[in-house]
Amino acid sequence: MSKKWVYLFEEGKAEMKSLLGGKGANLAEMTNIGLPVPPGLTITTEACNAYYDHGKDFPESLMSQVKAALEQVEAKLGKKFGDPQNPLLVSVRSGAVFSMPGMMDTILNLGLNDETVNGLTEATQNRRFALDCYRRFIQMYSDVVLGASHAEFEHILESYRDKQGVRFDNELSPESLSAMIEDFKVMVKKTTGQLFPQDPMAQLEGAIRAVFSSWNNDRAIIYRQIHKIPDDLGTAVNVQSMVFGNMGNDCGTGVAFTRNPSTGEKTLYGEYLINAQGEDVVAGIRTPLHISLLQEEMPAVFDQFVNICGILEKHYRNMQDIEFTIQGGKLWMLQTRNGKRTAAAAVKIAVDMVEENLINKEEAIQRVEPEHLDQLLHRRIDPTAKLTVIATGLPASPGAASGKIVFDADEAEALGKTGEKIILVRTETTPDDIHGIVQAQGILTSRGGMTSHAAVVARQMGKTCVCGCETLRIDYARQEFIVPTAAGDLKAYKKGDTISIDGSTGRVIEGVVPMLEPELTSEFQTLLSWADEIRTIGVRANADKPQEAAQARAFGATGIGLCRTEHMFMAQERLPIVQEMILSQNLEERQVALAKLLPMQQEDFYGILKAMSGFPVCIRLLDPPLHEFLPNEEDLVVEVTKMRCALEYADDQKEAILSKLEETEALLKKVRTLHEFNPMLGHRGCRLGITYPEIYGMQARAIFQAVAQLVQEGYEVEPEVEIPLVVHINELAFLRQLVVDTAEAVMAETGVKFEYTVGTMIEVPRAALTADQIAKEAQFFSFGTNDLTQTTFGFSRDDAESKFLGYYRDRKILPENPFIVLDREGVGQLMKIAVEKGRATRPELLVGICGEHGGEPSSIEFCHLIGLDFVSCSPYRVPIARLAAAQAAVKNS
Amino acid sequence: MSKKWVYLFEEGKAEMKSLLGGKGANLAEMTNIGLPVPPGLTITTEACNAYYDHGKDFPESLMSQVKAALEQVEAKLGKKFGDPQNPLLVSVRSGAVFSMPGMMDTILNLGLNDETVNGLTEATQNRRFALDCYRRFIQMYSDVVLGASHAEFEHILESYRDKQGVRFDNELSPESLSAMIEDFKVMVKKTTGQLFPQDPMAQLEGAIRAVFSSWNNDRAIIYRQIHKIPDDLGTAVNVQSMVFGNMGNDCGTGVAFTRNPSTGEKTLYGEYLINAQGEDVVAGIRTPLHISLLQEEMPAVFDQFVNICGILEKHYRNMQDIEFTIQGGKLWMLQTRNGKRTAAAAVKIAVDMVEENLINKEEAIQRVEPEHLDQLLHRRIDPTAKLTVIATGLPASPGAASGKIVFDADEAEALGKTGEKIILVRTETTPDDIHGIVQAQGILTSRGGMTSHAAVVARQMGKTCVCGCETLRIDYARQEFIVPTAAGDLKAYKKGDTISIDGSTGRVIEGVVPMLEPELTSEFQTLLSWADEIRTIGVRANADKPQEAAQARAFGATGIGLCRTEHMFMAQERLPIVQEMILSQNLEERQVALAKLLPMQQEDFYGILKAMSGFPVCIRLLDPPLHEFLPNEEDLVVEVTKMRCALEYADDQKEAILSKLEETEALLKKVRTLHEFNPMLGHRGCRLGITYPEIYGMQARAIFQAVAQLVQEGYEVEPEVEIPLVVHINELAFLRQLVVDTAEAVMAETGVKFEYTVGTMIEVPRAALTADQIAKEAQFFSFGTNDLTQTTFGFSRDDAESKFLGYYRDRKILPENPFIVLDREGVGQLMKIAVEKGRATRPELLVGICGEHGGEPSSIEFCHLIGLDFVSCSPYRVPIARLAAAQAAVKNS
Repeated sequence: MSKKWVYLFEEGKAEMKSLLGGKGANLAEMTNIGLPVPPGLTITTEACNAYYDHGKDFPESLMSQVKAALEQVEAKLGKKFGDPQNPLLVSVRSGAVFSMPGMMDTILNLGLNDETVNGLTEATQNRRFALDCYRRFIQMYSDVVLGASHAEFEHILESYRDKQGVRFDNELSPESLSAMIEDFKVMVKKTTGQLFPQDPMAQLEGAIRAVFSSWNNDRAIIYRQIHKIPDDLGTAVNVQSMVFGNMGNDCGTGVAFTRNPSTGEKTLYGEYLINAQGEDVVAGIRTPLHISLLQEEMPAVFDQFVNICGILEKHYRNMQDIEFTIQGGKLWMLQTRNGKRTAAAAVKIAVDMVEENLINKEEAIQRVEPEHLDQLLHRRIDPTAKLTVIATGLPASPGAASGKIVFDADEAEALGKTGEKIILVRTETTPDDIHGIVQAQGILTSRGGMTSHAAVVARQMGKTCVCGCETLRIDYARQEFIVPTAAGDLKAYKKGDTISIDGSTGRVIEGVVPMLEPELTSEFQTLLSWADEIRTIGVRANADKPQEAAQARAFGATGIGLCRTEHMFMAQERLPIVQEMILSQNLEERQVALAKLLPMQQEDFYGILKAMSGFPVCIRLLDPPLHEFLPNEEDLVVEVTKMRCALEYADDQKEAILSKLEETEALLKKVRTLHEFNPMLGHRGCRLGITYPEIYGMQARAIFQAVAQLVQEGYEVEPEVEIPLVVHINELAFLRQLVVDTAEAVMAETGVKFEYTVGTMIEVPRAALTADQIAKEAQFFSFGTNDLTQTTFGFSRDDAESKFLGYYRDRKILPENPFIVLDREGVGQLMKIAVEKGRATRPELLVGICGEHGGEPSSIEFCHLIGLDFVSCSPYRVPIARLAAAQAAVKNS
Repeated sequence: MSKKWVYLFEEGKAEMKSLLGGKGANLAEMTNIGLPVPPGLTITTEACNAYYDHGKDFPESLMSQVKAALEQVEAKLGKKFGDPQNPLLVSVRSGAVFSMPGMMDTILNLGLNDETVNGLTEATQNRRFALDCYRRFIQMYSDVVLGASHAEFEHILESYRDKQGVRFDNELSPESLSAMIEDFKVMVKKTTGQLFPQDPMAQLEGAIRAVFSSWNNDRAIIYRQIHKIPDDLGTAVNVQSMVFGNMGNDCGTGVAFTRNPSTGEKTLYGEYLINAQGEDVVAGIRTPLHISLLQEEMPAVFDQFVNICGILEKHYRNMQDIEFTIQGGKLWMLQTRNGKRTAAAAVKIAVDMVEENLINKEEAIQRVEPEHLDQLLHRRIDPTAKLTVIATGLPASPGAASGKIVFDADEAEALGKTGEKIILVRTETTPDDIHGIVQAQGILTSRGGMTSHAAVVARQMGKTCVCGCETLRIDYARQEFIVPTAAGDLKAYKKGDTISIDGSTGRVIEGVVPMLEPELTSEFQTLLSWADEIRTIGVRANADKPQEAAQARAFGATGIGLCRTEHMFMAQERLPIVQEMILSQNLEERQVALAKLLPMQQEDFYGILKAMSGFPVCIRLLDPPLHEFLPNEEDLVVEVTKMRCALEYADDQKEAILSKLEETEALLKKVRTLHEFNPMLGHRGCRLGITYPEIYGMQARAIFQAVAQLVQEGYEVEPEVEIPLVVHINELAFLRQLVVDTAEAVMAETGVKFEYTVGTMIEVPRAALTADQIAKEAQFFSFGTNDLTQTTFGFSRDDAESKFLGYYRDRKILPENPFIVLDREGVGQLMKIAVEKGRATRPELLVGICGEHGGEPSSIEFCHLIGLDFVSCSPYRVPIARLAAAQAAVKNS
């Protein structure tokens, strides 16, 4: 027996979405719960796949099954497909599992031909209407199925309007329509070489084929690529008996949401038109009315509709997006689906529905896309605003900001302090620019990836940032940047010009744009409190400053998972001391510089530990290579070369130049000594701690002195000292001893007893692979998945994202960007090994993650699955992480 | 009962080396096979460890066990320790498991005091002799055990010589000696605060303590560090009754090897002195005689000695290094051990002993240290030559060469072609220098590590190279380099000065030095043929050129494991075309350049496949990032800056400068576009193949066209096409298809059928972790352990070796440099995972290794253990690998 390719609506149900498509499954469901749905049938997605498997041939018995099903529809309605007297007309719609713009949408009135058009006239007693249906059908069908030119039809239409002297198509007389239909058919023959099919079954077959084909048109393919929808799902085809909303004033059509999709308020939200078909609403010829007005116009229908909305919400236990048609005073449901909504609405609806006992907390948690919370946490550009986008870079730190262009950090600082709103624009930022970044509303750079200095600093500060905007050509000398315009020429934006940046999308926009302010409603807090009840994994934040820690705490973080001490080294007033330390010729000189840094670091740690009092704070000792704190090598080379040239050509000031040259050359020499071919894999992390134990020693002392001070002041503190980049147990053993010795020394000096733990980042494959050994020396592990992804893939993030990950996406080489979504197969496998081996050695081992994946929902789910104790992310992602962690717990319970 | 700390010689045996030390175990063994050994006892290494465990206290009952054993020795000899009439005198010697210079060596004549010295006089009838023994004992014991000053004794000795007016100590009269002994004792009391101990048992206890302590003196610790000997082995102490070789002309002492340790010839090799003690031989006062002369002087003793040598060789089945003493015409054996030997001797002795049926082939294989074969494969500096070493760099490519200093590749080429011997000296080399390298005898660079361009190219060519010689300051302008001298000042070496370099040790030497030429003896060939019989793992070579392939084949390689195609791109005449390809603005331009490269690459592949006809050749498609083929960014920046300055200051030639400036800036822009932060983790390997499929397409075509040509000419070829740097199966699937399509196209075009395989490097952790998937698309795996080590450790080799691996060695953080000895725990774990997962998917998967570890014995053993099919290494390491592979098979059979 052949496979079942065709289902009557009454044979399906909502759960059969992958077979019947979203639309078909819901039509079936509505039919079966007794709602008024025009009868019809659905051709399965499997039929579509079989069609492609057979080299674009229909699978065996498909059309005979369609015919058989159609006969049952005919029986139900007492009409016959192709019957000149009482013809059954149908609509044909695609219906994929995920709704997909770009695919063929709808063919209405299929079944009309030169004969059945008379039957329709008969049945409706309206020749003009019947003819208009027919000419629309020819137009739509010839366009979509036969490939005739849309413009040619418009051309003919126009000529008839002119001839008859009317403005709108609906003013055309039956005679005009009749003549026009003949012209249409001639034109179709001429341009497509085919006669317009008169056989309704041939029409239907053509329409089904067109739906199948539209699955693989360019727009659909691109849409699937962007939305990561598999190519092998296929589309279903819905063939449904026609109902008409445009047969008179007791007819109409409309769409409605059961709740406000923008705010979540529990009121019907939608619009309708009397005497109109769906396409009229879309065409915008008449302005639709608010759904509430239907109550006055058709009270009975309205009551029935409200009732059905209630049934559907209860049935689907979710806010519904509904299409309906009224024919001759009778209400017909054409579609229902879960309604799309804003983040704010999603939160409110979820919380309200729990209070209405429609869903439980676990379900509520799953109703909100964690990533959408970002909208609620940052200012954003009003989505209705009209924008002039002048360039697009990487969305490095969410939010949006408008301000005057400034190219210099000092100027940014000065202007910012006067209250001026500014956007700091740089090719890239360095630690030298921090004071300018602090005062800027937003940061825009032309180079650097999602982990560039600008991006990392901005995210941490919750400041918006667009980086790596490569079409921007910045000319510091002229104090302007140039971008190519859409027209192909170049446009300059000068210092003081106003621009806006959208850190959530990467857009750079001309001028000031309207913004929506973030608001954290009580529903938001309620939902997240439920998430906290449900989730089993802790959520901490990555923060380096007391104010960031406070922000994180306000967002619900219960600890700091990563406090990067190098950001403290990079503060503008400290950099000279850090440089002095680096340029030291020997241990004694270095210790002099370190002694100056000690009280500063102590103050840093004091502040952050105090802000997080009662919660653990994981402090990572110095991680980046030392050359990051020194001037750029190329800049120095240019300086030196210029001075040499000046010496050669200019006669004056030789003395002064020579002395400066000597100084710069000495600095250049040091920079060159520290130069690394692959700094990512270079002299950093614990490797620094081993070659310069005095640096880590100073940091440990600063931590413990701050701890002792706080304990004396009565604060509860839980410091965790973290050694970065360990690859071998011996590294950790050596440095752990240094930390323990320092703690004991500080306890002895201050007479204060305090608790602390020592642990390590797991961010290099070898550490994961030998976690059983490393756990002997570590009280905790924290996965640094940014670096672990870099080393596991052998991808330098900065290089990969700008050089080849784009090609990888286009060619579908990698399913996801592994720097955004944790790679479970590779990186995840190492994490799993590390957790298992680590806990085998030390069952009480605390394990967390502090890479950027710690704030990404799918990655958080993986962390939940392998049993991590906490995730840690930037403060503004803490709510997202809390929600995602709860979803992971529900999904995998 | 207490532990047994003391063994009489007759209680031990050779196998107890770890308990009794090497010397003690062999004394016991000789005693038990009936050879004449002066009776004695050995205190175990466990006693030494117990001593340290007890805070430097003797373990319980140690001295009582010593006393009991000593009583048995007394009984055997009829003498008594401390007996004024007939005293037993003993020597006390340290005896670690591995012989260790730097530890306390020997105390002789222990047991002498003011009374027993008379007993010795009585027994020997020689008062002068007895007194001389006593004063020597006081001197030695006070120095070693009591810490008296050696110089003070010499001072007193000198005063007595002066007083008596004699030149040598042995001319001193008994009276002088007697008086001197009193002076010695006074001096010892004065300088050490202790009386010289008169109680022999106290003397013995002090000597034992001194031996134990010497285990942890600075020199011993450093020696263990260098030779990687564990610190917890401890040393044994041998207490042996004295025999005297200096009691008259029927006495003597000597050392001998049972075969020539330099050549391996089977003739007794050694020397002796009549009427002398061991220390006299060392002191060099008299010249020892060749051992053969003993036959005339003491025929019976000589015959007995020859006989004993035979017994010992048969017993130990190895060449022996023997110490003996003759007292009153009686021969005593004082030590035997396996003799150290040169590589040449090791090979000859091993092969000879198989022919003598002394050992079997498996044993012979194990008798030669694979690394030592290097000596036989390269010229080397005569080890007896006196050298002026002026600097030391990294031993980048073994061998040695002398030649005139040249700083420029063009000049090197020109001079080299005239037959001049030259050493090319550069800060670092680039592909531009290849023509100079080819003509040079050796390469010396001041920058770059073991994988720098110079090092890699030199190893491949079998040319000697010292690189990263950082004390060298090269001044191209002055055509000289400057090095600091030992005296602390600077010395310049100019172009044309002659230097020598030793690529096996990294030494740079002034002037020409005597060299030893390599010679591959028939024994060498025999031994390696046995290795081939025994080993189960294949040995291939890494080679890029036909002549290298031929060399590898001559050394016994049975295939090419890695043919790097980029080296072909770097040839001087091709670089401009490669650059043209890179600078192409679009696909069309790039294809024009690629079309020019195609015939060149085809010729390359033709040559190497032909040279290796009958064997597989694994060709890796382009691997390095494209910027490696472009000029250095900093150089371009300097150029541009100079031109800008010239424009500013100089008025003439503005036009010309401007045009050149524009061109250079364009190039700089491209270089900057290609710039990477971490090129090691950047846009290279298959990532290039995916973004520029036309490059890999050209290479695949060149390979297959060469294959078709060779097949037509009747050659058997086995091409393996290797895709580098795969991290995800999709990369390999995409590129494999490209290769397969190309092969099919070439077969269709040429009408020639040929076989080939497609596989991948496993050089990134993710590839190893997902090997089960990757094996679906790969017919072979080849471990690129250089890169795999870099990514598994997160160590950039270039940076790690120059920046922090030194500290790691000093602090014993890592047991070995993982770039030299494969890290079994981390990298090895990944390899094991990859082999298991890969073979689970594809049981017939061919797996090899082509990183530098492929030529390192311990790494080869690991490859054997995890079941690899082959190792591949540079041609000159092929013999080493063959031997190491055989040893691995024997050791793990």
